[in-house]
Amino acid sequence: MSVTAAQGFQAGSVEAGLKASGGLDLTVVVNEGPQWAGAAVFTSNRAKANPILWSQEAIKSGVVRAVVLNSGGANCFTGPEGFQLSHATAEKAASLLDNAGAADIQVCSTGLIGEMLPAGAIINGVEAALAGRSASDSAGQDSARAIMTTDSRPKHATIALETPEGTITIGGMAKGAGMLAPGLATMLVVITTDAVISSRELDAALRAATALTFDRLDSDGCMSTNDQVTVMASGASGIAPAGPEFTEALTTLCADLAQQLMRDAEGASHDITIDVVGAASDDDALAVGRSIARNNLFKAAIFGNDPNWGRVLAAIGTVDADFDPFAVDVSMNGVRVCHEGRPDRPRTEVDLTPRDTHVLLDLHAGAASATIWTNDLTHDYVHENSAYSS
Amino acid sequence: MSVTAAQGFQAGSVEAGLKASGGLDLTVVVNEGPQWAGAAVFTSNRAKANPILWSQEAIKSGVVRAVVLNSGGANCFTGPEGFQLSHATAEKAASLLDNAGAADIQVCSTGLIGEMLPAGAIINGVEAALAGRSASDSAGQDSARAIMTTDSRPKHATIALETPEGTITIGGMAKGAGMLAPGLATMLVVITTDAVISSRELDAALRAATALTFDRLDSDGCMSTNDQVTVMASGASGIAPAGPEFTEALTTLCADLAQQLMRDAEGASHDITIDVVGAASDDDALAVGRSIARNNLFKAAIFGNDPNWGRVLAAIGTVDADFDPFAVDVSMNGVRVCHEGRPDRPRTEVDLTPRDTHVLLDLHAGAASATIWTNDLTHDYVHENSAYSS
Repeated sequence: MSVTAAQGFQAGSVEAGLKASGGLDLTVVVNEGPQWAGAAVFTSNRAKANPILWSQEAIKSGVVRAVVLNSGGANCFTGPEGFQLSHATAEKAASLLDNAGAADIQVCSTGLIGEMLPAGAIINGVEAALAGRSASDSAGQDSARAIMTTDSRPKHATIALETPEGTITIGGMAKGAGMLAPGLATMLVVITTDAVISSRELDAALRAATALTFDRLDSDGCMSTNDQVTVMASGASGIAPAGPEFTEALTTLCADLAQQLMRDAEGASHDITIDVVGAASDDDALAVGRSIARNNLFKAAIFGNDPNWGRVLAAIGTVDADFDPFAVDVSMNGVRVCHEGRPDRPRTEVDLTPRDTHVLLDLHAGAASATIWTNDLTHDYVHENSAYSS
Repeated sequence: MSVTAAQGFQAGSVEAGLKASGGLDLTVVVNEGPQWAGAAVFTSNRAKANPILWSQEAIKSGVVRAVVLNSGGANCFTGPEGFQLSHATAEKAASLLDNAGAADIQVCSTGLIGEMLPAGAIINGVEAALAGRSASDSAGQDSARAIMTTDSRPKHATIALETPEGTITIGGMAKGAGMLAPGLATMLVVITTDAVISSRELDAALRAATALTFDRLDSDGCMSTNDQVTVMASGASGIAPAGPEFTEALTTLCADLAQQLMRDAEGASHDITIDVVGAASDDDALAVGRSIARNNLFKAAIFGNDPNWGRVLAAIGTVDADFDPFAVDVSMNGVRVCHEGRPDRPRTEVDLTPRDTHVLLDLHAGAASATIWTNDLTHDYVHENSAYSS
């Protein structure tokens, strides 16, 4: 179950010839209505790809009729021709949908930066993908496959929101191994729902959900030029959900997809959850968590099953937040190895062989907390990111 | 030639039994006078090791009679007992030098964080090292070896500053594979000179020199808890140098040592010089250079001899500096692969097989510039930092 799980959505995918390795590489997810509310969030990188430059303008109407996504090329740093291609892609898709304009189409790309995509293959691909679209489950599955690059598996999720009037469905797909900002590889997400909801409510729900999910995923601190999360609502269920319940369900779905991204991060051998508690503010907790998630020495130690808690403290000492590094407790997989800045239980008691790894920091500076998800730094990460060029 | 090259300095080193692997692990460098001007700069990490906490207070007098350095343990996050050990180390050294007080002694440590050092071994080691000290060249060489941890070779340098009154000598040694702030492994540097110079002048010269050398070295963005650069002046040459000439010579010496640190960075296969030109300010140029030096995707690409310039632009797009990412030129090893944010020469023309790698960015935003030195991200880096725990 994927982007076609909710009522009112169809998807079509083709092999447009964009990937050297072959296979599906272009997909269109269409909102068949009766409503076309849309919202999106984008990479905060100033170096934005052409499809981002297009989509962030197009989304301002609050209407999304379809999302066109391609792998095999990021269309980033490709100059005016690259922007024209994103625009032409939207024009083409709109021309094949009733009463649609180019501004109703979101465009997403992923792949190598600095290479021009073959315009003809893209435009023909859009036409073929739309012609072959369907509401079937397999169409949704294909869509999730068409956006894969270094992903080892397609990622999708659905959730049913029960209301007094009946069931609302939310479905989604994701590609990538990173986060919205920053992101390891480009992260692309499309979410569909049959709820009756305005684009303004949808935007608020999406921002609340991504702030607690995709934004908390920090594989390697590298921010992509192409990250985008788009949500479309068709209204086909006829049910208008209560705002908090819808936001909660959307957050659950986003957390599911974010966890799938973490578990498929390039080359990782440990999935690391960093809980920071006792912080003076949410921002402090987040900054402390991120400093650990981005510390190569800590991440390499986890790869080697080495509970080197000194590297945790060395990492957080660089953060300008309201806490005393010498008052901090550190636990690793349930063993408190550092209490108030001094050795506590022996590090030999920590078992880091499981893939799921838990680091808990108590800053003893307040009541705020935050959770960040990351991965270890491995030989395979270096290998995949040195060989990857397609 | 090392820390004993300048007149008025002796060094003694012993195997105190601190390193599991054995070998020299404690050294004392003594300023025999007739003057004892000293200056030091320290890690900017808030998580500071006990010897740093001691030394940054002790340096306030501007007098340094000796520096005691040990490998085999960082003495960091070891609580009050750890601080007492740094203090006792200084007391012991001072008691063996005529008319010295503990505040005249700088203490430096390197090794694993969060483990208590054996106090008896340290104190006995100080006594033995001082008893065996000499002004010979081999004593200087031993000193540089005693502070090695993952270093593959000792690092030292000397420079002769010719003046109308005669020659002033500056000598120095370094350990580590990183930078002052941040640093990959702990960086410890001791510099000696026989110049006649006040501690205030020495401090100004040291800060000017480190800002352009050690502070520009960014192996992996990880900041150590123990970094320290200390300079001592004995006045034994009887010559008072002109300030600018002395600062220039000291900067040249520091650049030499910093380059040696870069070339010995853990696991590196490329030494990367990043030149940022056309920046609106020095701070902008530095921030842009650092964002590239800390980008794992860029560093992994260089390891794989892949001129993936999109990763350079994706990295700098995260920097809040005054430039347009789409107006930037990027050259790699002399080939301009990106001009004004668009592909220029084919990336296939770039040869990244040499160890020395040069990345040149022109931001087209002003006249300021900066150079940052870094390394690639390799399998060996991951290996050494996952296995390293001593």
